[in-house]
Amino acid sequence: MDKILRIDMGAAGGPKVSEKPMGEYEGLAGRAMTSAIVSREVPPLCHPLGEGNKLVIAPGLLSGSAAAISGRISVGCKSPLTGGIKESNSGGQPSQVLARLGYAAIVLEGKPVDDSLYKILINKDGVNIAADNSLKNLGNYDLVDRMKEEFGDKIACISIGPVGEMKMPVASIAFTDMELRPTRHAGRGGTGAVMGSKGVKVIVLDDTGMGKREPKDPDAFKKANKKFVQGLKKHAVTGEGLPAYGTNVLTNIVNEAGAYPTNNFSNGRFDGAVKISGETVAEIEKERGGNPTHGCHRGCVIQCSGIYMDKNGKYLTKQPEYETIWAHGGNCGIDDMDAIAQMDRMDDDFGMDTIEMGATIGVAMEAGLAEFGDTQAAINMVKEVGKGTPLGRILGSGAAVTGKVYGIERVPVVKGQAMPAYDPRAVQGIAVTYATTPMGADHTAGYAVTANLLKVGGDVDALKPEGQVELSRNLQIATAAIDATGYCLFIAFAILDQADTFQDMLDVISAFTGQPLTADDVTALGKQILTSERDFNTRAGFTAQDDRLPEFFLKEPLPPHNVTFQVSDEELDQVFNW
Amino acid sequence: MDKILRIDMGAAGGPKVSEKPMGEYEGLAGRAMTSAIVSREVPPLCHPLGEGNKLVIAPGLLSGSAAAISGRISVGCKSPLTGGIKESNSGGQPSQVLARLGYAAIVLEGKPVDDSLYKILINKDGVNIAADNSLKNLGNYDLVDRMKEEFGDKIACISIGPVGEMKMPVASIAFTDMELRPTRHAGRGGTGAVMGSKGVKVIVLDDTGMGKREPKDPDAFKKANKKFVQGLKKHAVTGEGLPAYGTNVLTNIVNEAGAYPTNNFSNGRFDGAVKISGETVAEIEKERGGNPTHGCHRGCVIQCSGIYMDKNGKYLTKQPEYETIWAHGGNCGIDDMDAIAQMDRMDDDFGMDTIEMGATIGVAMEAGLAEFGDTQAAINMVKEVGKGTPLGRILGSGAAVTGKVYGIERVPVVKGQAMPAYDPRAVQGIAVTYATTPMGADHTAGYAVTANLLKVGGDVDALKPEGQVELSRNLQIATAAIDATGYCLFIAFAILDQADTFQDMLDVISAFTGQPLTADDVTALGKQILTSERDFNTRAGFTAQDDRLPEFFLKEPLPPHNVTFQVSDEELDQVFNW
Repeated sequence: MDKILRIDMGAAGGPKVSEKPMGEYEGLAGRAMTSAIVSREVPPLCHPLGEGNKLVIAPGLLSGSAAAISGRISVGCKSPLTGGIKESNSGGQPSQVLARLGYAAIVLEGKPVDDSLYKILINKDGVNIAADNSLKNLGNYDLVDRMKEEFGDKIACISIGPVGEMKMPVASIAFTDMELRPTRHAGRGGTGAVMGSKGVKVIVLDDTGMGKREPKDPDAFKKANKKFVQGLKKHAVTGEGLPAYGTNVLTNIVNEAGAYPTNNFSNGRFDGAVKISGETVAEIEKERGGNPTHGCHRGCVIQCSGIYMDKNGKYLTKQPEYETIWAHGGNCGIDDMDAIAQMDRMDDDFGMDTIEMGATIGVAMEAGLAEFGDTQAAINMVKEVGKGTPLGRILGSGAAVTGKVYGIERVPVVKGQAMPAYDPRAVQGIAVTYATTPMGADHTAGYAVTANLLKVGGDVDALKPEGQVELSRNLQIATAAIDATGYCLFIAFAILDQADTFQDMLDVISAFTGQPLTADDVTALGKQILTSERDFNTRAGFTAQDDRLPEFFLKEPLPPHNVTFQVSDEELDQVFNW
Repeated sequence: MDKILRIDMGAAGGPKVSEKPMGEYEGLAGRAMTSAIVSREVPPLCHPLGEGNKLVIAPGLLSGSAAAISGRISVGCKSPLTGGIKESNSGGQPSQVLARLGYAAIVLEGKPVDDSLYKILINKDGVNIAADNSLKNLGNYDLVDRMKEEFGDKIACISIGPVGEMKMPVASIAFTDMELRPTRHAGRGGTGAVMGSKGVKVIVLDDTGMGKREPKDPDAFKKANKKFVQGLKKHAVTGEGLPAYGTNVLTNIVNEAGAYPTNNFSNGRFDGAVKISGETVAEIEKERGGNPTHGCHRGCVIQCSGIYMDKNGKYLTKQPEYETIWAHGGNCGIDDMDAIAQMDRMDDDFGMDTIEMGATIGVAMEAGLAEFGDTQAAINMVKEVGKGTPLGRILGSGAAVTGKVYGIERVPVVKGQAMPAYDPRAVQGIAVTYATTPMGADHTAGYAVTANLLKVGGDVDALKPEGQVELSRNLQIATAAIDATGYCLFIAFAILDQADTFQDMLDVISAFTGQPLTADDVTALGKQILTSERDFNTRAGFTAQDDRLPEFFLKEPLPPHNVTFQVSDEELDQVFNW
């Protein structure tokens, strides 16, 4: 992992490949890499779909090694959804494979001269790019099947569906899982539209003939890794809750806390929650011959995912995430789990962000396009996006545009990106993250649900403003650093609660790189990443006024606690004042 | 004109009227009034369609008096199109009538508790507000006919069409002309959507029983006014060009200059220009029994408007403005004048901004929804907006949203508002105005076409960056002040070129108010207005990065001169550094 692959899709005479040593980006990986390249090389006022934007795909620091649960991959660009910098990361196999192929980053640049659609094969022999317009309009599932036919089943794929080809701001980039299914997505911020604007349908990776990345100190690495895994296993969240029920373990917890955004953020409790909870889904999966405990990439030791079969016992989709089930479920008044799973499958296939889609359908229901709870209408809306009808184009532009187009006031977005499955009034720490992260409303950027609701890594009252800024700040710093390592963010539960597990993580990285890593180094890295991201956004025209929640969260009390968002603007402006 | 009328549309129990003396707003009128109220009273981060926004309608300082051509009225609010402050002004009769009724401003506040639609009657007896849901979905023409039936023909109306009721960002507010037709519009920035969000369909004004507003020094006033009118008459633009051909006198001039944006700003010359020029339109109007020389309000001495009949000699619409004919014409590759007039009529009837609509259709054509030059497709698109179909909702949200929804790069907007009929590459002074005015791309905010192309008020090479910032700055200052007086901006041609006519204008105002007005006072007023507007925008999150043109104007040379926009960012940032 010592070189950067750049492909100029706008070169005269067709795509032009260049491989160079890391240079100024030496030592960076994952989010540290994507945000550095975007911040330094992309003109902040460029059109997100134009020649100035770049799509950067970078494996984490430990990806491709034997380090447990280190298969996260980062995608960076200027976001077509927010207009700001974007890092969206994903699980799946490609991170490991790309790292073993030796690439610290793939950078797609330039603007195609015509509308040809390209597939890119990367293997031990190098890079091969070919136009293949027969791939046009294929869903991710059919596309991956085609790639299997063509390149065998030892591959991993990074691809877009028709929504990415249509360059809609909800478009995601799909990453294949262990079963070579396109179920893992860099979902947020429209990265798929940028890939579509570069004319790239799929990047096929084959690491046949390449070995694992070796640590500098193999013995210390092996020992620390083993202890680290033990630490994950012994923590209640990473050792029990997530393996048993996946992220959807949260449905009952968040709903019980009165923080479950229902019917487009108009209530904090959803009557149908139990029908779509993690416990219920695990039962369905077991009954139908699916699997409630399954990893998204080799080397995962938490196994928060699963396999969801339809009523006939046939594979339908991976176990949908909590945020997906919320978005297509309670947020739209829907408690039909099979319908939600069907929408998850369509989102993966069309290539779009489940959170943005569900939030957008909620806004459309608020606008009167359908009643809350109308499952068939919701399914139809997802189909419209896949087809690119005028209504589909509206919805495929996300919640903010849909709200503007229909003149709706209650639009739960920050920086143009829809909020995920935690009402900011009842989880005021996550609200601070929503408001201030350079990414637009994003729970993963500083997951204060930990101390607010789960009482992991501290205990900060979710309904009060006190302590939320510090909580969010520390989590945003730590998250930015973790997003650079390749580690799945879910290790945070254990490293926040268990000092020795945190030290084990440092030891793994130190042994891998051969350079001692301290807690202070992690903090410094996180701050450096956030600073580069905020700097980009400032140059793109973002101000403190963009670090605010929509006003209805400050005015409309949320049942059942009847709370409004209480953290002041002045406090919000202190998040990055470290 | 010594009181402010406020109507709280959100009051419990129905709309609540209050009348108060001017107080802190003493001495303000027109744009000075609207921008002061919006800047001081509207929370900059409020939702434009929510309870925090206010719709302010204010006659000019001289409106309702015997001062010639003083019938402009200003509408202010936070714009649903740009998210910034908006002042959009209009001709027509209402300014004179409202001023004679004694109101310096009407302020619509609050948010209706239900979806009733209201009509407001204001006459010498006061204010009467009544719900009237039978008015729902009426076009402005039918609506005004209904008001005539109900209140007689001595009225003037301020109203919205169905597009305003649907709260689309292209919605305008219509003001009736001398024939009681809804042909004059505060077009830009979605003011009609704000009126719709307040639940007000129409404000009917009847000044029966009220007299003209009298000057403090009647003799000096009469004398100065007479000289002022003579000055207008003797200038080539205000005395000849505008009366004979209206604003559309510009089609041949701008096209000849290579600055006529054609096919969505992809060329500076339009082959079909002669078919839609002012000269041609005047001929059509004369042939069919229309009228090429007609004023929009009593007291107008320029008479730049006209009456456009259809092929059967039946009234179709007022003489469409140059910018309208460009927007629906050359910008979409269309040279069918009857079709353009039909779209102008539909825009007026549905209540929407002709510039934004035409620019949006151009973007839609760029996106492949129709070919450039497809007249019927363009007409159908306008109809879609009137009906509020999904496609209509997209187009009714303006060019920026349409570009985002369809993933198009060439979108000619600043601050989310579409550019008018002068390509910024070939009229670099107007480009500076587009970029920097707090209003979003707006030619009227600082009409540098004067010195750039018409050689009025100076001579600054249109294709070069030198001198453009100073030109735009001075014009923006002067325009803001003129927009406060009630004077039609077209007096600018004469007062820029003729020092004595400028002095006559000062003398008219001095004699009217009884307080001596100097050129320095005018400059100070203009600066004060711009400062309050920019202050609002800053608090709403606007930065220098919002004072920029879309990047394609900096990169794609415009034929036939093959020029790009040359004024640097650093120079743009000096516009308000006075």
